[in-house]
Amino acid sequence: MTSLNGRGSSNGRRNGVPSKQRPVRIAVVGLGYWGPNLVRVLHELPGAEIPIVCDVDGAALAKIGRRYPAIELTTQYERVLADDRVDAVAIATPVATHYPLAVAALNAGKHTFVEKPMSGSVTEAEALVAVAEERELTLMPGHTFLYSPPVNVVRELIHSGELGEIYFISTSRVNLGLHQSDASVIWDLGPHDFSILRYWLDELPAQLSAITRSCIMPGVPDIAFVNLQYASGPVAHVELSWLAPSKLRRTAVIGSRKMVVYDDTSNEPVRVFDSGVNLPEPTDFGQYKLSYRTGDIISPAIAPIEPLSLELTDFCGAIRRSAQPRSSFVIGIDVLSVLEAAEVSAETGGMVTLESSSLT
Amino acid sequence: MTSLNGRGSSNGRRNGVPSKQRPVRIAVVGLGYWGPNLVRVLHELPGAEIPIVCDVDGAALAKIGRRYPAIELTTQYERVLADDRVDAVAIATPVATHYPLAVAALNAGKHTFVEKPMSGSVTEAEALVAVAEERELTLMPGHTFLYSPPVNVVRELIHSGELGEIYFISTSRVNLGLHQSDASVIWDLGPHDFSILRYWLDELPAQLSAITRSCIMPGVPDIAFVNLQYASGPVAHVELSWLAPSKLRRTAVIGSRKMVVYDDTSNEPVRVFDSGVNLPEPTDFGQYKLSYRTGDIISPAIAPIEPLSLELTDFCGAIRRSAQPRSSFVIGIDVLSVLEAAEVSAETGGMVTLESSSLT
Amino acid sequence: MTSLNGRGSSNGRRNGVPSKQRPVRIAVVGLGYWGPNLVRVLHELPGAEIPIVCDVDGAALAKIGRRYPAIELTTQYERVLADDRVDAVAIATPVATHYPLAVAALNAGKHTFVEKPMSGSVTEAEALVAVAEERELTLMPGHTFLYSPPVNVVRELIHSGELGEIYFISTSRVNLGLHQSDASVIWDLGPHDFSILRYWLDELPAQLSAITRSCIMPGVPDIAFVNLQYASGPVAHVELSWLAPSKLRRTAVIGSRKMVVYDDTSNEPVRVFDSGVNLPEPTDFGQYKLSYRTGDIISPAIAPIEPLSLELTDFCGAIRRSAQPRSSFVIGIDVLSVLEAAEVSAETGGMVTLESSSLT
Amino acid sequence: MTSLNGRGSSNGRRNGVPSKQRPVRIAVVGLGYWGPNLVRVLHELPGAEIPIVCDVDGAALAKIGRRYPAIELTTQYERVLADDRVDAVAIATPVATHYPLAVAALNAGKHTFVEKPMSGSVTEAEALVAVAEERELTLMPGHTFLYSPPVNVVRELIHSGELGEIYFISTSRVNLGLHQSDASVIWDLGPHDFSILRYWLDELPAQLSAITRSCIMPGVPDIAFVNLQYASGPVAHVELSWLAPSKLRRTAVIGSRKMVVYDDTSNEPVRVFDSGVNLPEPTDFGQYKLSYRTGDIISPAIAPIEPLSLELTDFCGAIRRSAQPRSSFVIGIDVLSVLEAAEVSAETGGMVTLESSSLT
Repeated sequence: MTSLNGRGSSNGRRNGVPSKQRPVRIAVVGLGYWGPNLVRVLHELPGAEIPIVCDVDGAALAKIGRRYPAIELTTQYERVLADDRVDAVAIATPVATHYPLAVAALNAGKHTFVEKPMSGSVTEAEALVAVAEERELTLMPGHTFLYSPPVNVVRELIHSGELGEIYFISTSRVNLGLHQSDASVIWDLGPHDFSILRYWLDELPAQLSAITRSCIMPGVPDIAFVNLQYASGPVAHVELSWLAPSKLRRTAVIGSRKMVVYDDTSNEPVRVFDSGVNLPEPTDFGQYKLSYRTGDIISPAIAPIEPLSLELTDFCGAIRRSAQPRSSFVIGIDVLSVLEAAEVSAETGGMVTLESSSLT
Repeated sequence: MTSLNGRGSSNGRRNGVPSKQRPVRIAVVGLGYWGPNLVRVLHELPGAEIPIVCDVDGAALAKIGRRYPAIELTTQYERVLADDRVDAVAIATPVATHYPLAVAALNAGKHTFVEKPMSGSVTEAEALVAVAEERELTLMPGHTFLYSPPVNVVRELIHSGELGEIYFISTSRVNLGLHQSDASVIWDLGPHDFSILRYWLDELPAQLSAITRSCIMPGVPDIAFVNLQYASGPVAHVELSWLAPSKLRRTAVIGSRKMVVYDDTSNEPVRVFDSGVNLPEPTDFGQYKLSYRTGDIISPAIAPIEPLSLELTDFCGAIRRSAQPRSSFVIGIDVLSVLEAAEVSAETGGMVTLESSSLT
Repeated sequence: MTSLNGRGSSNGRRNGVPSKQRPVRIAVVGLGYWGPNLVRVLHELPGAEIPIVCDVDGAALAKIGRRYPAIELTTQYERVLADDRVDAVAIATPVATHYPLAVAALNAGKHTFVEKPMSGSVTEAEALVAVAEERELTLMPGHTFLYSPPVNVVRELIHSGELGEIYFISTSRVNLGLHQSDASVIWDLGPHDFSILRYWLDELPAQLSAITRSCIMPGVPDIAFVNLQYASGPVAHVELSWLAPSKLRRTAVIGSRKMVVYDDTSNEPVRVFDSGVNLPEPTDFGQYKLSYRTGDIISPAIAPIEPLSLELTDFCGAIRRSAQPRSSFVIGIDVLSVLEAAEVSAETGGMVTLESSSLT
Repeated sequence: MTSLNGRGSSNGRRNGVPSKQRPVRIAVVGLGYWGPNLVRVLHELPGAEIPIVCDVDGAALAKIGRRYPAIELTTQYERVLADDRVDAVAIATPVATHYPLAVAALNAGKHTFVEKPMSGSVTEAEALVAVAEERELTLMPGHTFLYSPPVNVVRELIHSGELGEIYFISTSRVNLGLHQSDASVIWDLGPHDFSILRYWLDELPAQLSAITRSCIMPGVPDIAFVNLQYASGPVAHVELSWLAPSKLRRTAVIGSRKMVVYDDTSNEPVRVFDSGVNLPEPTDFGQYKLSYRTGDIISPAIAPIEPLSLELTDFCGAIRRSAQPRSSFVIGIDVLSVLEAAEVSAETGGMVTLESSSLT
């Protein structure tokens, strides 16, 4: 592999950084539910190329082969790792395999994109980070919602101060249908909301409590209610469910100045309410005289851009610039911390206090 | 007072049970936000009469006087208690006064209706029950939702088995506006949902955990997230808030056979979804093959009857028949148990285990 | 009657204009569906008083008497007209009686408010205007929607040019329920939309065509589709129906710069869409390259004021100032012109051309 | 070409009817907006094959070639007609070319599927039918909505009598965006609604009136309001627009027994309202006492099948069975009759009476 990145070539370790003149060559590993989306988007991405894809299922490979005749197909992961054309690996396999596949890719000198959640535990994720840092490779978890235009509109409303102090966030992510049979709904749907909360608030929850129930399959929670408290003030509630009469993706963000509803299923995914409570100073007798403000409601126009395309562009850019992508491994580990804490709380029934990763 | 009820007259203690020939005469005490509704409905109720109303605020009294010239007005509660025309007292004052006013009424031999929550604590409520039982008087908390037609349609769907096993219930009761400044949102809005859950499931939660935040006024929680677990299986989540961009009254009941959404703000307050998951026996290899069922959705026609009218009719009937009303003191105490547990959990941060009242 | 209005007293003809020091005294005539609303609102209106009400139905009178003991009740319209306390009459009787009652009131020197439609024909309305002008009395049709805050928000959007050129307006006013059995749906619901269109566009339609059907009662159309064309460009469609699965009050106003949806049943009655088509100059080959613009959507906050209160305040003010009210007789006659034309078109099946009233 | 259809082979004229053993081979002509959908669906249809596609635009051809490497590409329509492998032609070109392309296809002995509207006029369509009948070939217009599952659910509700007598139908088909620049909105969107109405009511309107406006491009109406009257009783209104703040696909069907709302953009595309008016016999005094019935609302589950797939299956079946497809040329001509009448009415401003095609 010819490295054309200055820093990479000077210390001999920064392998796999392609020149600006040629595309980043990415092997997609795992062609189940999500992998074909990675193939479709990378295929259309200027600056990216897919030399080879890998899956243990020959039928899944063949289907890709019919659509993209130029892409090489393999059932042997070793062939991907040994392939000098491959700058980076994008892993979209079941969660349990994220760690072994990613650590092998990093050890083979490949930049590595891993679907969310990044691995099966914080410990595994920290081990991956250690390898990536040692070898100066990009390691990126695929928290796609961090590239969603409406999520970013809301983040800007929060960070600009337009919403004022964030009082609380309440979110429901429910639909009828189990996406995975090997994981709980917390590990399946939770990474979406916990990564969004982390991205909006720039903070891990200080503590949380969760209850779950395994309604359909013994030992596989399919409904979870998670309450979260943040050190800087906000509280949050996350409802996750594979059992629901209809799809619901509704997040309310309540600030001291304005309120926002973000609904990914709506034609108006972000609605900003200029509503709130005015609290004057207490009177002599300690009486509070509250008044309520209900002003305009605005649905800002949102650019219709596919988040996955932005995410994979960021991955390529991170490789080229040797910089952290927006969906950084720090966020990936923080999300894992919340997933682990929620699982512990659901099992033990108590409030769980979170510690930030030493990496953060 | 002429008692025409057989049992009442035989032992001389069952005072205040009017004959069928004459209306139950009820004094309304407290004419703030809710009391005038009691006056309006009792005024139109065949079988009830309002001889006198009482409030410390002369303006509130005068307003009622203009609308109902025949009703006597007083600022002296003692006058109500001493009034022989008065069979029963309906108390709609701030929560802190429920106990002293109710205990005085019962001691004066008056049947007593108390707005929800029944008193400021389980202890107080149990003391009230002791007096009522000793004096053989009706004591009824005003859990109006138990008389709501849609709530009863859902209860029938649950109790008839049409929904199958109840997996979980998720409910949001939010709007912009603090109704009370002397109580938390748990004590203000919580009695609605906790009485409905108690009425639907016939069971107290075994344990719960809650988080709250006092966003606007120090020490007065205005947002609460409460997670509940029931011994027989169901889990539930209750979101209560005085801070919200728009009014939301949405309750999803997920059963093994069907699902229901109950929304009090909708023209179709109950919607029944014939949807669910089919879980066949696991195959030889322990694999589960789930399939999803999405069938018809039905919005049953709901009788447009005012719950408060049904509630006060039940109060009068309970007095006449010396029977427990649907909104019984047992339910009233159970609701208080949940309120107290939620408050404890919010303060201590942990899961709280509930014990059933010895009365239950 | 003591007239304290300068102009009135100087020429001796401007009777019935009360001084600023005393309220306008209005008799309400007709206590069916709508009349009690006039009583309720006038009762609370500073600057107005109701000395007497009149209806042929003793029960309707008695009901008002119980609510408002100070108001005199009569079944004799002559007594109202002869009553020196009465400055003005507000008529809320069936349409067929509007003309005889109003002409009698004007001839008795009373300012006259008549519910919509103002009379049974343009001819009758013009006769009323002649009497009112001759006697210098205020004559006002009750087009309440001209005082609706959302209707005025939309009018301002049109008149300020914010919507650009008005391309077309499409409106549906449907629900389940016949309000009147003596009139067609055109005469019952049409005055709402035709008065709004007249108020927004300041223009009568040049021509219209309508189809109707009498589905339930022979000879009483309960559904109407009316197409309208305006000389200045806009076209409009008005759907009116007493037969509908659910209430619909939806009006879309499409302008060259922005679009508006006005929905009286919504919590957000006005929504402004910054959407449209950009049409550049045609290219050399006469090809048009259109592009579409989809921008922010804004729901302006609307003051929660009851239109009827504003309307009756305007009536009182018009009397005091000897000025035309917003809901002028000119608008009242224009609405009648449209009603008559729609009826003719529905019967003859053709396009009908309208002529403006000579009064306009 | 080997004909294996009995009747076809016996008279030597029924060319192009393939045996059951081999697929119907269909050439797709026109690869603009809609043609690629025909290719996609036919490609996946058991019993169909695409030997060749044709378009004048090389880029459109190349795009299909990349996706379906096995399909032959041509810019020469003559090559399609001369191709012995081709049993049938599916034409998805601009409306103006429908007639010449279809008549050439039929004259070449090919079964012919033509996108809606079938041709530019009734006269052209009748000429096509004459050729098709003379040569015993299938001629099918592509009225896809006749294969839409919700449209068929509504049709069944009408035909089974469940809705009772059909009083009226009101429909809106509006969105922001001109699909065609060479045709009016009547010709672009109208075929959808007029084919559905024809399919539901089995009847042409007796007369109609329409108004249109060319808001954006001179001479190209982009908004149309069409009122229709049917001899058997129903009236209908069709609103068509390329200018609208949001997409609307709402059709209300009001019957004497029940009412239906069909909304193609909803998750519940068909909603059945058990609502209506009860009209008892008039009393002695000729008074009508109406009562309103508001019962359950049901959203029947609808099979998620792509209409285009059902439509093209019907085309293949019609060829094999020498039978009329559901979307028959009779319906195609009736739709053209309505389009022509609407255009005449919009230009002349009057009510237009329709005559049924002699073919019907």
